Amino acid sequence: MSTVMKVAQRGSFTKEMEAVAKEEGIEVEILRQRIARGTVVIPRNIDRELKPVGIGEGLTTKVNVNIGTSTTYVNLDLELEKVKVAIEYGADTLMDLSTGGDLDEIRRKFLKITNVPFGTVPIYQASLETAKKKGAVVYMTEDEIFDTIEKHLKDGVDFITVHTGITKELVSKLKNSSRLTGVVSRGGAILAAWMLHNIKENPLYSNFDYLLELAEKYDATLSLGDALRPGSIADAHDELQVAELVNNSKLTKRAWQKGIQVMIEGPGHMPLDKIAPDIKLEKILSGGAPYYVLGPLVTDVAAGYDHIASAIGAAIASAEGADLICYLTPAEHLSLPNVEQVKEGLIAAKIAAHAGDIVKLGEKAKGKDIKMSRARAKLNWQEMFNLSYDNKHARAIHEQFGASSVTSCTMCGSLCVYLILEKYLEGGS
Amino acid sequence: MSTVMKVAQRGSFTKEMEAVAKEEGIEVEILRQRIARGTVVIPRNIDRELKPVGIGEGLTTKVNVNIGTSTTYVNLDLELEKVKVAIEYGADTLMDLSTGGDLDEIRRKFLKITNVPFGTVPIYQASLETAKKKGAVVYMTEDEIFDTIEKHLKDGVDFITVHTGITKELVSKLKNSSRLTGVVSRGGAILAAWMLHNIKENPLYSNFDYLLELAEKYDATLSLGDALRPGSIADAHDELQVAELVNNSKLTKRAWQKGIQVMIEGPGHMPLDKIAPDIKLEKILSGGAPYYVLGPLVTDVAAGYDHIASAIGAAIASAEGADLICYLTPAEHLSLPNVEQVKEGLIAAKIAAHAGDIVKLGEKAKGKDIKMSRARAKLNWQEMFNLSYDNKHARAIHEQFGASSVTSCTMCGSLCVYLILEKYLEGGS
Repeated sequence: MSTVMKVAQRGSFTKEMEAVAKEEGIEVEILRQRIARGTVVIPRNIDRELKPVGIGEGLTTKVNVNIGTSTTYVNLDLELEKVKVAIEYGADTLMDLSTGGDLDEIRRKFLKITNVPFGTVPIYQASLETAKKKGAVVYMTEDEIFDTIEKHLKDGVDFITVHTGITKELVSKLKNSSRLTGVVSRGGAILAAWMLHNIKENPLYSNFDYLLELAEKYDATLSLGDALRPGSIADAHDELQVAELVNNSKLTKRAWQKGIQVMIEGPGHMPLDKIAPDIKLEKILSGGAPYYVLGPLVTDVAAGYDHIASAIGAAIASAEGADLICYLTPAEHLSLPNVEQVKEGLIAAKIAAHAGDIVKLGEKAKGKDIKMSRARAKLNWQEMFNLSYDNKHARAIHEQFGASSVTSCTMCGSLCVYLILEKYLEGGS
Repeated sequence: MSTVMKVAQRGSFTKEMEAVAKEEGIEVEILRQRIARGTVVIPRNIDRELKPVGIGEGLTTKVNVNIGTSTTYVNLDLELEKVKVAIEYGADTLMDLSTGGDLDEIRRKFLKITNVPFGTVPIYQASLETAKKKGAVVYMTEDEIFDTIEKHLKDGVDFITVHTGITKELVSKLKNSSRLTGVVSRGGAILAAWMLHNIKENPLYSNFDYLLELAEKYDATLSLGDALRPGSIADAHDELQVAELVNNSKLTKRAWQKGIQVMIEGPGHMPLDKIAPDIKLEKILSGGAPYYVLGPLVTDVAAGYDHIASAIGAAIASAEGADLICYLTPAEHLSLPNVEQVKEGLIAAKIAAHAGDIVKLGEKAKGKDIKMSRARAKLNWQEMFNLSYDNKHARAIHEQFGASSVTSCTMCGSLCVYLILEKYLEGGS
C-alpha cells in the first residue's frame, strides 16, 4: 500500500499536499520534503474525503477539540451540537473520546458530519467492551485491542491515539515513584492496569509493527499517546515522562521507515519555564515529529478556569514549536463540558495558538492583528467585530450598556485617545 | 516629612514592613533593604489605614483591578458592586479610573469602603474639569493639574499614576512615527494634545521635583505611567516606548534620592517573545523598580476574550519579574466591564500571577498546587472546590450534568484513572 508519506518520500505530490501548501502559503515542494522527513503530517484515511489539514514544521499551529459522551452521561444531541460549535469556531481537528452509549454509532455519526481530520482512542472502546463482558478492563485480549483499532480505521478515522510508549518497565517504576498524581491518561491507566495484572508487555509496544501495518492499510496517522504525562506541575519532567518520550521517539523513527505519519503527544501540567525545554526535547529526540500537546497547564489550581491556565501554556508551547494544541474547557477536572464551555475552550486555544504563531511564523501570522489595530485606530467597530473570534459576542459586550453617545465605546467615551488626539496628529499614520 | 522609604533607608522598620514581611514569609530586614533600595514598595498614604501590601522583588505577584464610571455611563451602585467583587476574589490593589459623575464623591466613597492600596490617575479629573469649564482639555493649566493631584493625595489615595516620561521631544517624534495605534493611554493622549497645543514641556516632567514634594507630604507612591506603551503588537518596543522607559527610569532614581516610593508602568500589546526582554530592560534601566504591567496582550485580535490574551502575557511577565499585574476584562477594547467581567478578568489575572510565581518564587509558591493535586488523586471534591478561585463556580460545573454515579466526575465516570489503577498501585503514593 502507498501512503501520503511514501508518496512524499518518492518525490511525488498528492492533492492533499497541494491543498495544504496553498492554505499555508508555502511551496508544495518544501511541504513535500517535510512530509517525507516526517516533520509535517496530513492526517487522512483512504476511506474518507476531508479538508486536508497540515500539522507540523513551518505551518500554523492547529487546535484540536475533544468531544464525546461519558460513561455516566450520554446525550448524542448535545455532542452533535458541540461538533457544530467546534467547526463553527474553527477547530482544525476533532477527536471522539466517547465512552458511553453505542460507541460505533456515535463515532460513525460524527465521521459523517465532519470533514476535518478526525481522531479516536480505540483503547477506550476495547476496554469498555471488555469490562462489560468480562467484568474488568484487565481481561482484554491483545486481539480485542487490535480488532477495535482496525474497526476505527475501517470506519474512516484519520488518526488514532495509541499509548505505545508506556512499557512494563516504566509501569514498575511508576509503582515505586513519588508522583503526586500517578497516571492521568485514561488509556495509560488502562494499559498500566493491564500490564500489572497480566504481567505482560504493553501490546501496543510489543506489536508496534502490526500497528504500522494497520496504519499503512488505511494510510492513517498514529498519534503516540503520553500515558505518563504529568498530571500536576510537581510531576513535570520526571523520569517517567521523559522515558516515555524516548520510547515514542524511537517508535516514531520505525514508523517513518515504513512511511507512516506520526505525531507525538505531550503534557499535561508543567511550570511555564519548563515548556520551552519540553518542546525542544521532543523535537530533538524524535527528529522533529509534530508535537501534539494537551495544555500545558501552568498551574494545578485553576479548576473552573483551566482553559485559561492551558491557554498560557499553549501559547508558549506554540511559540516554541508545538504543532497541534488540544483545547481544554473550563470544565476540565470537573465535568464533561457543555456546549458553551466547548466554545470557550476552543476560542482560548485559538488565541493561544495564534499568539504562538506570531512568534513562530513572524510577519506571516500578523496580518489579522494589523487589520484589527488599524480598525481600532479608526474606531471602525464593524471591522473590529468581524475580526473577532466571536463577532456576536464582541458586539454584545460593546453594546452592553447601550450605545455610546460618541463614536468610541462606553469605557472611555469622550476621553477616547483617538478622539482627543485626532486633530493634533492629523497627517500621521 | 518622613516616608516609608526614608525610614527603611535609615535602617528602621515600620509596622507596614513587619506586616508585609510576615505575609510574604521573608525576613523583615531583607524587606527593609529592598524598600531602602527601591525594589519593593508598600503603597500607603499617611491619612489612611490599610492592609499593607508589598509589591516588588521576591514578593508574590500582585493583581490590580481598575474600576470606575465613564463619561458616557455613570452608575455608582454598579461600580460599588465591582469593588465588592474585586475584594472578594482577591484584588491586591484597586484603581479608580472614574471619568463620569461627581468624581470627588465617587473617589471618596471607594476609599471609604476599601482597605487595599488605592490608586488614581488625577490627570483624568483635571482634564475633564477643564474640558467642562473651558471647552477642551488643552486649556488646562499646570496649577490645575497639580491641585488635582494634591486633592487626590489629601483624600488618602495611596498611589497615583503620573505620565512623567512622555516629553515634548517624544511627542514630536510621535507625530512623525509610523505607529499603527499611536497613543493608547488616555493620560498620555491628554498630555500629548496639551503639549502639541501649548508648545510646552510636559508639566509632570518639568515639575517632577514638585511632584516629589507632594508625594513626600502624603508618603504616597508614584506610579510612572507609560503614555507611549504599544497599543498593538506591531508597535511593541519601538523607539517611543523605550525612550519613555529611559525617562521614567531616570526620574525613578531622582525619586529614590528623595525617599519616594516608585513603580514604573509597562505595556501593553507585545508578541510573547518580547515580554522577557521587556521586563529585563525595565529592571536594568531603572535599577530594579517594581514593574506594573498592563497585560501584556500577546495578540491584538482577542476582543471579547482579552482577559485570556493578557493572562498569557501576564503569566510570562510575572515569571520574568513583573511585580504588579493590571487585570484586563473580557470587555477590554469594547466597553466598560460589568460585574461578572470584572470577576472573570480578575481571576484570569490571578491565575497568570500565580503561574508566574511558580517560576519566580519556586517551591514557596507551589503549596496550593500540591494540595490541589493531592485532593485530585484522592477524588476529594470538597477540597478541590475549596482550593479553586471560585468554589461555587467549580462546584456548579462539577454538578452541571447531575451528580456522577461514581466518585469521579461526569467526564470519565468509571474510566477515571484513579478508579482504574486504584487497586494496582496500592502502596504507592
